[in-house]
Amino acid sequence: MSLVVQKYGGTSVGDASRIRNVASRVAVRHQAGDDVVVIVSAMGSTTDDLLQLSADVSPNEHPREMDMLLTAGERISMALMAMAIQDLDVEAMSLTGSQAGILTDTTHGGAKIQDIRPFRVREALDAGRVVIVAGFQGVSPDTKEITTLGRGGSDATAAAMAAALGADACEIYTDVDGVFTADPRIIDSARRIEEISFEEMLELAAAGARVLMPRAVEFGMRFGVPIYVASSYRDAPGTWVKEKTMEQAIVRGIAHDTSATKITVHGVPDRPGVAAALFEPLASEGVSVDMIVQNVSERGITDISFTVPREHAEVARTTAETVASEIGAAGVDVAPNIARLSIVGSGMRAEPGVAATMFRELADAGVNIDMISTSSIRVSCVIDESDVERAVECLHRAFGLDGGTPDE
Amino acid sequence: MSLVVQKYGGTSVGDASRIRNVASRVAVRHQAGDDVVVIVSAMGSTTDDLLQLSADVSPNEHPREMDMLLTAGERISMALMAMAIQDLDVEAMSLTGSQAGILTDTTHGGAKIQDIRPFRVREALDAGRVVIVAGFQGVSPDTKEITTLGRGGSDATAAAMAAALGADACEIYTDVDGVFTADPRIIDSARRIEEISFEEMLELAAAGARVLMPRAVEFGMRFGVPIYVASSYRDAPGTWVKEKTMEQAIVRGIAHDTSATKITVHGVPDRPGVAAALFEPLASEGVSVDMIVQNVSERGITDISFTVPREHAEVARTTAETVASEIGAAGVDVAPNIARLSIVGSGMRAEPGVAATMFRELADAGVNIDMISTSSIRVSCVIDESDVERAVECLHRAFGLDGGTPDE
Repeated sequence: MSLVVQKYGGTSVGDASRIRNVASRVAVRHQAGDDVVVIVSAMGSTTDDLLQLSADVSPNEHPREMDMLLTAGERISMALMAMAIQDLDVEAMSLTGSQAGILTDTTHGGAKIQDIRPFRVREALDAGRVVIVAGFQGVSPDTKEITTLGRGGSDATAAAMAAALGADACEIYTDVDGVFTADPRIIDSARRIEEISFEEMLELAAAGARVLMPRAVEFGMRFGVPIYVASSYRDAPGTWVKEKTMEQAIVRGIAHDTSATKITVHGVPDRPGVAAALFEPLASEGVSVDMIVQNVSERGITDISFTVPREHAEVARTTAETVASEIGAAGVDVAPNIARLSIVGSGMRAEPGVAATMFRELADAGVNIDMISTSSIRVSCVIDESDVERAVECLHRAFGLDGGTPDE
Repeated sequence: MSLVVQKYGGTSVGDASRIRNVASRVAVRHQAGDDVVVIVSAMGSTTDDLLQLSADVSPNEHPREMDMLLTAGERISMALMAMAIQDLDVEAMSLTGSQAGILTDTTHGGAKIQDIRPFRVREALDAGRVVIVAGFQGVSPDTKEITTLGRGGSDATAAAMAAALGADACEIYTDVDGVFTADPRIIDSARRIEEISFEEMLELAAAGARVLMPRAVEFGMRFGVPIYVASSYRDAPGTWVKEKTMEQAIVRGIAHDTSATKITVHGVPDRPGVAAALFEPLASEGVSVDMIVQNVSERGITDISFTVPREHAEVARTTAETVASEIGAAGVDVAPNIARLSIVGSGMRAEPGVAATMFRELADAGVNIDMISTSSIRVSCVIDESDVERAVECLHRAFGLDGGTPDE
């Protein structure tokens, strides 16, 4: 008998029949003898409907009340899920984030989980019940206010709850079969990864693989809770994300991300402090900067390029322009149609030359590399958006991810 | 400066523009210097939508989860209301029933308010805020479960909150202009009542006047909080419900109710204990019995008639049939197309013959009386449903409620 935390996203609970479908999966698991905690998101369209309502009522931002509003979404899905499970003769009860003891800081709309005190969850499990917990929401013990966790919040709820309960696994059910060697929507030969390490998953997620949120992986890594990602629609095997994998892959997977914008500050006087002068104001504007590359200086003048999420592009441009004129730089360029392309694998540490192979393959495929950044288990390049498909395809084959032999 | 609790029902907050309309009424009141607590129901169609969702998911009853589900409704309307009020430069915050300290018993779907500990409400008022509180919901301190108050719950929340805060008034805003001398939808000459006593209002409400729920009136009466009923759409004057009125009316108003069913047990052996034998099982089946009339016994045999709400009719019939065969009665008759017609006025106590006048007027109008029941300030008759309009009209004129002189 084990204790599992399962998470089902908005699409998986999108209507009455999908809710009943998830309920029967949960019931089967419970009847097999496992203790089950189910984390649910709001039903597919609910959040959009609530956002539309609030836009109809008010053009302004109301962070506290927005959290109050949006948390109605999981309240609805969790109550319906509990009903559907009870109908299968399995005792079940739903708990809000607050009732489940999910304690957060005070940041409305993007709160961080600080602690979980799952007394009521344990009590209900001990009584033989399936417990359904609202994802994405918590309560701040400082202000007694209801908070939401922002992007990836329900995955974070699941992993954190699994950690707090000492669960045997955290299972994230979604609309794909698991984590793939590349995006299966563009690469036919992309294969499901059976096992991947936490750190590889973190790098892939940060590099654009949308299947699992970095926040959830961090909880799993920190507290040693294995995460299983699989389809909520069928019983096909998924992907295990865990501390150690049997085999260290040189390249475990390829991720790409076309949602970034590249900003370049030209003709920057190369003196101490210019990078700080640029990136401090960006940070205080809340712009999240991903890759940064500073060119080798020529005659005391250099260029600094960086990528930001598309939604931060306008603020980033304005800020960069202000800084550019203050530090006497020549100007600012914005390139919206770029892509970040990354290869990730913990085996890279032991295998020199992986980056070089990537660069050669891209060159042979006629793909121009615009920026490069690396970590110990990842190499990322910025390329033109129109080259993405070709680039992923050639690397997928080159590193043997399609099942063939890697290029020598 | 006074403290008022205002309640707005589902129609009054039915869409974005109505929410903004209520918000501006509240803001004006607050800017005039009053402390305002606003109780809101769920938006017009929300509760029906949620009930439909739950019916799609499950054919069974799930009282706890149904309360969890339905309380999402007020959560949505209260958050939107707070946003709309904030947009008018008035500080506002919404509180759930639980946050507002509304403590109930443990009965899901029909909980009773046991206590209100409005610490957070007071704190927010002291900070100069308008407080929006979810109607219809509370929390049971025994089980820590979210409960709903059932029918009339939001009015009860308002009156109980007004009592707990020692408010100067509880204002119930609705889709009519106040309490009328008769139903203005069928009687053109029906007039708004300016003042009515708690006990008269209780009798009228129990007799079928839908404008205000008896539960709210009871709170007002018990704690001496005047209740004001008025339109949420226009600034027309409404009706004050209070302890004492300036003038005791002989007949304050006429109410009718066509939602009852009459059940008659025929040929009942007239011996001690037969009434108990009938009404005890009805009570334990949860049937709420209104009027009861037992005929004068002839040769040791009598008939017992009683009225029940239409939704209890089927259970009442089955129960009565079982009892009838046990006690050796002749049989059970069900009359669905009846109406209860009541006149209410505290002046009746000092004025004998009011009931007689009512009976004569009805007789002159050719309306047959089927059952009669009286209290010290009310006379009710059961008549045929098809006679209702004519009967109300003749009594309304006869007792001078249309502004004319009462018949001598």
